[in-house]
Amino acid sequence: MNSTHRHEDAWVEHIRALWGPSPAEVGPGDDACVLAPARMAISTDTLVEGVDFGLDWAPPEALGHKALAANLSDLAAMGARPESFLLTLGWPPGLEDVFIERVLGGMHALSSKERLGLLGGDLTRAPGVMVSITIVGRQENEPLLRSGGSPGDLLFISGPLGGPAAALDRFRSGERLVAFDPAAAPAEPVQRLLDRFFRPPSQIALGIFLAERRAASCCMDISDGLAKDLGRLCAASACGAEIEEDALPLDPGLAGQDRRAAVETAIKGGEEQILLFAVRPGDEGCLAQAPVPLHRVGRLIPGKGIRILNAEGHREALAEPGFDHFLA
Amino acid sequence: MNSTHRHEDAWVEHIRALWGPSPAEVGPGDDACVLAPARMAISTDTLVEGVDFGLDWAPPEALGHKALAANLSDLAAMGARPESFLLTLGWPPGLEDVFIERVLGGMHALSSKERLGLLGGDLTRAPGVMVSITIVGRQENEPLLRSGGSPGDLLFISGPLGGPAAALDRFRSGERLVAFDPAAAPAEPVQRLLDRFFRPPSQIALGIFLAERRAASCCMDISDGLAKDLGRLCAASACGAEIEEDALPLDPGLAGQDRRAAVETAIKGGEEQILLFAVRPGDEGCLAQAPVPLHRVGRLIPGKGIRILNAEGHREALAEPGFDHFLA
Repeated sequence: MNSTHRHEDAWVEHIRALWGPSPAEVGPGDDACVLAPARMAISTDTLVEGVDFGLDWAPPEALGHKALAANLSDLAAMGARPESFLLTLGWPPGLEDVFIERVLGGMHALSSKERLGLLGGDLTRAPGVMVSITIVGRQENEPLLRSGGSPGDLLFISGPLGGPAAALDRFRSGERLVAFDPAAAPAEPVQRLLDRFFRPPSQIALGIFLAERRAASCCMDISDGLAKDLGRLCAASACGAEIEEDALPLDPGLAGQDRRAAVETAIKGGEEQILLFAVRPGDEGCLAQAPVPLHRVGRLIPGKGIRILNAEGHREALAEPGFDHFLA
Repeated sequence: MNSTHRHEDAWVEHIRALWGPSPAEVGPGDDACVLAPARMAISTDTLVEGVDFGLDWAPPEALGHKALAANLSDLAAMGARPESFLLTLGWPPGLEDVFIERVLGGMHALSSKERLGLLGGDLTRAPGVMVSITIVGRQENEPLLRSGGSPGDLLFISGPLGGPAAALDRFRSGERLVAFDPAAAPAEPVQRLLDRFFRPPSQIALGIFLAERRAASCCMDISDGLAKDLGRLCAASACGAEIEEDALPLDPGLAGQDRRAAVETAIKGGEEQILLFAVRPGDEGCLAQAPVPLHRVGRLIPGKGIRILNAEGHREALAEPGFDHFLA
């Protein structure tokens, strides 16, 4: 940790303080903003070569898919219905055109599936490949905010944890995703794990379900790890949280790790792009109709901070954060 | 020209063809899209270190100012009123926090002046500094499109040409802008020229004026040079254009160049961020009330392509394009 550099959340606070209150119905600090009067939800997310991916990690289609999927996940976390997007693409002079064509092809396949329109964008030279998307959706129901949770609310996540972090380790050790089919993940377990990194499961139907039923007291997507993002949810909801270690669903790709390491990966690994939300006690019955399997992992508690209730019944405070772009 | 690489407009066409018609009232291919039903105009533009600027060319405030100003210019070209924006900022680990704080400071000064709200954004590590903005505005009047011009329409621009291109040459030769005051440009001529590169004159009032009065048959902002952008305006309006060389207003910063070179810089230099528009003959009277000085530089003509009417009365075809990110 370098004390001369602000960490990511401190930068966000610096910028929010500089600009002051936003004119939007929902301003900066949540997964998307919501603009009145048309109730459009807008969010932006960028992938940068050498930071978020390596050029040779996977077929270029996978990169196009992931760049759009990461943005879809932000709108899903608001309960908004994605409709269209703007695309900024940058790449260096030496790159073959076919690489960019294939990035676009992978993005277009997902865009078609989700029936999104392209609104515009920008093309530029850049020192490495970068894909930046601004996604626009319709907020048909009250937005799912990070704030609104209360002590006692039950915490849920919408999928197993740790797969993307385990895949990242494998990519960094030289393993590669050899094929990417927009329609289906590979069957072979290691390739499936690597594929998961580029293919977060769609959260759109779940987000709309939660917003329609007013089922969640607060919600966000996990992109920087459960620990860090739950910290943000708790800060916005002015409470703490307790996670039950035994309740954490682990990605099958963690099967090779010992239990302790697997739990650590599950708690701290980033790039999950699944939803984390809380439900008032007694309201959890309506989750039976949710469009994807859900996992209860703990609850909101009074006070501050996150504690882990481990298998032996001991409670320990979770001190370490998850991924931070500016401390990595 | 490298035949294995698509040029910028060909990439735009490739992407537009891949996605097909846009759901927006105005889709990709103009300076911004316009979304029904709230008639929001949205556009995005990115500046990349080593491509669009050097880190040591100017005080960081100048970069923040320019990144936002370039986006404002795109909305001005639609006649939209900018209201808010999303900000994506990327920078490498070694950069001092104060550099980014100063970029934000310069951007915030312009944002305050134009009364813009910050909606959200994304912060990321990147190999170099990059600033990407998605700007959102209100389209209160019919949008000013690139299409709609007809042969005979008079062509206008909203300021002298060639300053930013001349400044770019000087930056590349090692000259530097030593101070940047968001409120005022420097008086010294060379510093004033370098400042102009980072401080395009605001076109918002002019864009709204043209849209309110329905004064322009077509309009766009000049960002890649008069020659190239006029070519795009002509293509969208299905006509050609004739430029009168003697009518071209030259930036005072070109005074040191011989006439021939200065005209070439004026025609081909990029980064102008002023408006180029056409007016039906007989309608030009209403331009007397325009909020900025305007310059009539030629007219739209039947057919294709751009020709120059030079001082001796000779007409010659303009073959060469202006700036292209992917051929540079």
